[in-house]
Amino acid sequence: MVEVAIIGAGQTKYGNHEQGLKGMWAESALNAFESVDQNFDPRIIDEAFIGSTAFGGGQLGNTAALMTEHSGMDNIPVRRVENACASSGFAMRDAWLAIKSGQADIVVAGGIEKMNDLSPERKRFWLGVSGDTEWERLAGLTFPGTYALMARRHFHEYGSKHDDLVNISVKNHTHGFLNEYAHLRKQVDFDKAKSGFMVADPLTLYDCCPTSDGASTVILAADHIAKKFTDTPVWVKGSGAASDYLALHDRPSITELIATKKAAEVAYKSSSLTAKNIDLAEVHDCFTIAELLATEDLGFADKGDGGNFASQERGMRNNGDVTINSSGGLKSKGHPLGATGTGQVVEIFKQLRGDVEQGRQVDDAEVGLTHNVGGSGATCAVHIFGRSPND
Amino acid sequence: MVEVAIIGAGQTKYGNHEQGLKGMWAESALNAFESVDQNFDPRIIDEAFIGSTAFGGGQLGNTAALMTEHSGMDNIPVRRVENACASSGFAMRDAWLAIKSGQADIVVAGGIEKMNDLSPERKRFWLGVSGDTEWERLAGLTFPGTYALMARRHFHEYGSKHDDLVNISVKNHTHGFLNEYAHLRKQVDFDKAKSGFMVADPLTLYDCCPTSDGASTVILAADHIAKKFTDTPVWVKGSGAASDYLALHDRPSITELIATKKAAEVAYKSSSLTAKNIDLAEVHDCFTIAELLATEDLGFADKGDGGNFASQERGMRNNGDVTINSSGGLKSKGHPLGATGTGQVVEIFKQLRGDVEQGRQVDDAEVGLTHNVGGSGATCAVHIFGRSPND
Repeated sequence: MVEVAIIGAGQTKYGNHEQGLKGMWAESALNAFESVDQNFDPRIIDEAFIGSTAFGGGQLGNTAALMTEHSGMDNIPVRRVENACASSGFAMRDAWLAIKSGQADIVVAGGIEKMNDLSPERKRFWLGVSGDTEWERLAGLTFPGTYALMARRHFHEYGSKHDDLVNISVKNHTHGFLNEYAHLRKQVDFDKAKSGFMVADPLTLYDCCPTSDGASTVILAADHIAKKFTDTPVWVKGSGAASDYLALHDRPSITELIATKKAAEVAYKSSSLTAKNIDLAEVHDCFTIAELLATEDLGFADKGDGGNFASQERGMRNNGDVTINSSGGLKSKGHPLGATGTGQVVEIFKQLRGDVEQGRQVDDAEVGLTHNVGGSGATCAVHIFGRSPND
Repeated sequence: MVEVAIIGAGQTKYGNHEQGLKGMWAESALNAFESVDQNFDPRIIDEAFIGSTAFGGGQLGNTAALMTEHSGMDNIPVRRVENACASSGFAMRDAWLAIKSGQADIVVAGGIEKMNDLSPERKRFWLGVSGDTEWERLAGLTFPGTYALMARRHFHEYGSKHDDLVNISVKNHTHGFLNEYAHLRKQVDFDKAKSGFMVADPLTLYDCCPTSDGASTVILAADHIAKKFTDTPVWVKGSGAASDYLALHDRPSITELIATKKAAEVAYKSSSLTAKNIDLAEVHDCFTIAELLATEDLGFADKGDGGNFASQERGMRNNGDVTINSSGGLKSKGHPLGATGTGQVVEIFKQLRGDVEQGRQVDDAEVGLTHNVGGSGATCAVHIFGRSPND
């Protein structure tokens, strides 16, 4: 069975972009091409998968082809992959499957979203439609409201508290402050994060990720060709994905995401690794409570202990067994919906190769994980990466 | 390398549906499950790919998970694949890749669209956004207008004429009249088809496909497991896909679709077959001129001879070397955008197994082809199927 390597990865800065979709994609793709150690000609790319929720509400069909046509990838098979905020996590999986199939040697997975040319109403709409519409959105439940319900229930069942979430916010801002690609590069202390204005009780402004523009691009290669391009590829050691009921009321519990647990189980099994082997993880912290749940669902903390994990700062860079969101996460690095999943892979690629800015390096980074969630947990993709391939 | 079989396929009728997305998907999936010769439990499905342009303008994110959650396919990895009208042609390709990868044994490819609960303005919008927006749509070029340009140019370069297109319309209505799943089941004679009201000169009403609701579902299986479910699987002998510039002005020619030619070249090569081996083909006749171009681009007619091919009725069922659109095609069977690609596979599956209604059977049907185009040709997926696997 062919093993899959990443030979290059790049992205735009996340934030408010003046350029449109084509410009953002071209910048991201070029950054990825230029990150390949040996000269890389994009005309050798066999296939591409581009994640986007709605191309930022532009609502254009066939836009995956519009992205590739003028970025050196003309005429290749390309499609949009859409799973709300997990769109490019699944693009990553589908690119991995394409190489595993033996039908392609060099495949691009990417993502893109442009949110900040939308009116506030349209932004709310495009965020809201990623959750359940029939029972939740049309009844007035917003996304912060959805995650606020999860937080309240976790507080009730396990004794976690809002201060735990504040610690997650402070940590991610601490990490993102040094990341030149981050949307919100500012240091936020405990008191400030604790006293943000209320969005959806108990979640304040500092519990919520921003709305970002951005694009990200990852170049995958089959093992037999990867070494032509770099001596230090990053290997995809495992991939797992799953889905769950879209509406919260259909789920047996709202203090865990079953899609995360199932995706992680498959990813760990396929890589023959466990949570204990993970040195750093990019987890989907669209809200701080989502990171708390992820630390439990991915096995970094015991069930119910996610609050303590956060308050003890066990996810802070080089402060515990695993560094969580060394990039700043969605909270600080930003969340351009469809670009987020492959953007997480960009961070892991750079960390495992020692290519990050001064002060950002996770020590002894050998194995990294990405965790990308669609909406309130209806879809999830988990990938595990390492500096060495599977045996 | 694992070979890929189709063990079941089903769809809804195409047309105006009163039921919503969930109901249509459940009906289509159930028809596919029930088409499997041996009892089929959907809980064994490993993964799913669902094509949709916009879930019919419902514009919901994460809706692929909403489709699978209550159709016996809970918790599996599922994503939406979007490439405008070629969405489920690419879902089919991605399902094929997933089985080829060795990571999945049973995979569902499907598609769904609901158009008829939209206002006329929104219908036009959702059709228009599948072509180029920047240079074409915002300048007022509609989809019929786009294909009308192609027709006029073909008439000019090759001497084809509107009567040739009329023959395509008559043929597809003749085929579709007997298809119980078709949207427009009516016989249309030459004079009637010739005298339809003008939509975009030279294309009249009878040159244009209808706007349909519908869903379609195909069950793919790895060779080592397929025989458990049926003694007569249909084999995927080849898959090819490609893309092209979205805007017509970027293309070197508008009397051929380069994406079709490239996709077909790969599909033929991977199956070791040529156009001469194809007994029946479902081609993407969103407009009659699109079928004319497809007969040339797929190699059934010489370049420039597509008009004669049509007027000599060489694509009529059992009237020539290859039957074109035995289902009625998009013109008569209907065109529910994202459902069309896997809907074409449903027809080939039934024809190759001899499962069609009386009078519809293509004689000696051993090898079939599907051709699914996104928008005005920016994306295309071609698949070749046979009663026997590749050697």
